[in-house]
Amino acid sequence: MADTRFFDRAGPFTLAQIYKAARLDPLVESAPSFVDIGRLEDAGPDQVTFFDNIKYRDALRSTRAGACFVHPDYADEVPAGTLAIVTPQPYKAYALTAQIFYPGVKPAATIHAASHVADDAVIGVGTTIEAGAVIESGAQIGANCWIGANTVIGRGVVLGDGCIIGANATVSHTVIGNHVRLYPGVRIGQDGFGFAIDPAGHIKVPQLGRVVIEDGVEIGANTAIDRGAIGDTHIGAGCWIDNLVQIGHNVRLGRGCVIVSQVGIAGSTVLGDFVVLAGQAGIAGHLKIGSGVRVAAQSGVMRDIPPKSDVMGSPAMPIKQYMRQVATLTRLTRKRGKDD
Amino acid sequence: MADTRFFDRAGPFTLAQIYKAARLDPLVESAPSFVDIGRLEDAGPDQVTFFDNIKYRDALRSTRAGACFVHPDYADEVPAGTLAIVTPQPYKAYALTAQIFYPGVKPAATIHAASHVADDAVIGVGTTIEAGAVIESGAQIGANCWIGANTVIGRGVVLGDGCIIGANATVSHTVIGNHVRLYPGVRIGQDGFGFAIDPAGHIKVPQLGRVVIEDGVEIGANTAIDRGAIGDTHIGAGCWIDNLVQIGHNVRLGRGCVIVSQVGIAGSTVLGDFVVLAGQAGIAGHLKIGSGVRVAAQSGVMRDIPPKSDVMGSPAMPIKQYMRQVATLTRLTRKRGKDD
Amino acid sequence: MADTRFFDRAGPFTLAQIYKAARLDPLVESAPSFVDIGRLEDAGPDQVTFFDNIKYRDALRSTRAGACFVHPDYADEVPAGTLAIVTPQPYKAYALTAQIFYPGVKPAATIHAASHVADDAVIGVGTTIEAGAVIESGAQIGANCWIGANTVIGRGVVLGDGCIIGANATVSHTVIGNHVRLYPGVRIGQDGFGFAIDPAGHIKVPQLGRVVIEDGVEIGANTAIDRGAIGDTHIGAGCWIDNLVQIGHNVRLGRGCVIVSQVGIAGSTVLGDFVVLAGQAGIAGHLKIGSGVRVAAQSGVMRDIPPKSDVMGSPAMPIKQYMRQVATLTRLTRKRGKDD
Repeated sequence: MADTRFFDRAGPFTLAQIYKAARLDPLVESAPSFVDIGRLEDAGPDQVTFFDNIKYRDALRSTRAGACFVHPDYADEVPAGTLAIVTPQPYKAYALTAQIFYPGVKPAATIHAASHVADDAVIGVGTTIEAGAVIESGAQIGANCWIGANTVIGRGVVLGDGCIIGANATVSHTVIGNHVRLYPGVRIGQDGFGFAIDPAGHIKVPQLGRVVIEDGVEIGANTAIDRGAIGDTHIGAGCWIDNLVQIGHNVRLGRGCVIVSQVGIAGSTVLGDFVVLAGQAGIAGHLKIGSGVRVAAQSGVMRDIPPKSDVMGSPAMPIKQYMRQVATLTRLTRKRGKDD
Repeated sequence: MADTRFFDRAGPFTLAQIYKAARLDPLVESAPSFVDIGRLEDAGPDQVTFFDNIKYRDALRSTRAGACFVHPDYADEVPAGTLAIVTPQPYKAYALTAQIFYPGVKPAATIHAASHVADDAVIGVGTTIEAGAVIESGAQIGANCWIGANTVIGRGVVLGDGCIIGANATVSHTVIGNHVRLYPGVRIGQDGFGFAIDPAGHIKVPQLGRVVIEDGVEIGANTAIDRGAIGDTHIGAGCWIDNLVQIGHNVRLGRGCVIVSQVGIAGSTVLGDFVVLAGQAGIAGHLKIGSGVRVAAQSGVMRDIPPKSDVMGSPAMPIKQYMRQVATLTRLTRKRGKDD
Repeated sequence: MADTRFFDRAGPFTLAQIYKAARLDPLVESAPSFVDIGRLEDAGPDQVTFFDNIKYRDALRSTRAGACFVHPDYADEVPAGTLAIVTPQPYKAYALTAQIFYPGVKPAATIHAASHVADDAVIGVGTTIEAGAVIESGAQIGANCWIGANTVIGRGVVLGDGCIIGANATVSHTVIGNHVRLYPGVRIGQDGFGFAIDPAGHIKVPQLGRVVIEDGVEIGANTAIDRGAIGDTHIGAGCWIDNLVQIGHNVRLGRGCVIVSQVGIAGSTVLGDFVVLAGQAGIAGHLKIGSGVRVAAQSGVMRDIPPKSDVMGSPAMPIKQYMRQVATLTRLTRKRGKDD
């Protein structure tokens, strides 16, 4: 399925191995075995697929896949020729299975002759550094990391083990945990947007903090995270941040937050755990956004939000209130049309 | 007109040559000749200009240009000293004429000693590779391409002929046609935003597709296009994509789409041909946007849109309905003000 | 306070030195002296802090800092153990003081052996060029500049004195004044989004202008500024531009404008002096935005705006009118709820 110019496939794996990978109850029998994962619509008898979106129900009913992860509610819609692997979380099971078929590129543990590593930088065992990468004075890179081509790791930056940094990225003034991935073109640790307004010329406020990124964080392409003005900008463990996101100085994200593409979070705002900000949402500065809050796409948050609230609109309000406002305006406009 | 530190000018060209370049009916006489293009307000007698925006009508009436591309409706407003070259598409004629005066930098057909080209990469005839560029294993670059300084072309990437890739760009997992231009800082082919939500730590879904870009596409600075999760992200021939745009995994664009700056298109959404998305618009995932649809700036599209519709608002609706809603709210607010 | 892996601290400084730095009336006595700046909540007796945001009033009352810049209105809330340095602009005084404690990295005046400087480029005295940086033919770099690693300065580009260009940036077709800072990943001078729409394939309009950036401008990470189509894109002295901003071809900014993250300004729009565009605002093309205008976050400006106006909404309107519309819709929705 995947283009072998770009991807290396492992396997084949037996059904028992797949159960184990997908964290399902152990299976005694190990046959049959599978050579790949695939989509409902084009997976063959030696491939494993999944069903997780009601839009693809027809594809489920006509799939030719060898096996299919499926929620109990839809198990009886799996065709006779396909083995239904029933689980309450079919997408998770698929993700884990895909990971064993496509384990990703392993670090080559080579430091390219055309990279530039400062004499006093520390590079861990098994770490790869590609051509043109620059590792500045005092930086510490953990074991089994991958530093992409032409990426710049600034003075004193710390990376834990197993981090993957894409090409053409820039990281400065930052301390990073383990198993963090930065995509190509990320900018982390540069000056925040800090100055005192002055008609004779705005006066720069030195930005003296850092960025701290905990374990297991992913940060998308061309995203920018500024370091703190005083104190740190903080990204909690397991946060997923998409492309082209802006995170201002001294912002704090709790654990497991999901920040979708083109979101902006202004300075000193604090998010709890598992907050979800949908695409292009904007959050003003110095706010508190409670754990479990979900902000709809393009919303503009101008006030604190209590935990577990769903908000929408610009300015953002509880989603039910927003929907009522939309309905009111639609009704009044229609009525007026009749009056004319 | 153009600063010669940055631009090389060709010419002079005779009027007949300009007619030919602008794809107008052939002209027998070849005099006069012109040395440059210019703006209405400052072009001189040896320069060609154009009129295409009613805002500049005064500038048309007082222009000193030697010749002016102009729509038939305005031909009689061209001053006596200026030759009116009448065409229904004056801006197109200007574009084609400007192309002969400023043909752009030709590839030098040199591979810089400080670039890093893998032994098994294939580089076409006439292709230039600048300092610091990295071409990874198995990549195939066509003829007469230009690969900018410090750009990284990943393993197995394919480029057709005549492609121009700006500096500091990153391309991986991608197959590109002919005459494609990528501006500085583009990120193409990185992992999409794919994971299964899990309180114990979101689980990464391997992103196993590619990006396919057809002929004649332009992609603006710092734009990000993620590769497919399974299957491809696809950009149709002749699409023009501006700066800082986000295109998620498995998005498909038809031919000739125009995607203005800071637009975001979420995963698996499919656009027809000649769709126009104005600046900062956002399109949710898994939608179908018909051919010829136009989406106004900052709009948020949450549903499928039939072909040739114009929509506006967040959430987006037919533009007439949106305008009526704006009028209703204005009227009710004014009325209330009077009641107070 | 600041992590010494990343920052070099100067000092200690006497109180008289701090008064001088903060541009306050001269002080005869020079004791006591201070070793650092710090935050209200954790500064100690040998540190200077500031109070400028009413949200932190409790922290002011309990601070242990040795001295505190404070507005006259709050001077009597400074605790007995803390010296109140009274000034109408405490944040400005703090900024100036922080600058003497943290003067920033000085250029090392070294040109890295692995940088690529064209033979005919001119490099000023005291300028540092880091590894992998590329300076193309005819470029002129002033004195005491810093060109970050893997940054590309294109043919003929001019930089004044004291400019700091971050890593992985790209600058072409641009003339830059003195003391300008470009953050990592900025893209300046690439082609604007210019083409004539054509069903047979949109036709590129050669982009023949430049970008001109006056003295003292700051431009944030991954921001894109396109060069003019004909004539220049112009950024006035002392403008502050945040991360991920888009500025189209032929835009003109006056002096001291503040452009917050993810703002987009479409082609040929002209801003006066000291315009403030808050985060994610969008400005359509060919508009005139008067001096002193403030545009609220996420607003969409579709018409000219007279000087000193405050606008909000999409489409943007005077902020009072916008607030009245929000109130009207809230009231009508609530009323309808009661009617149901």
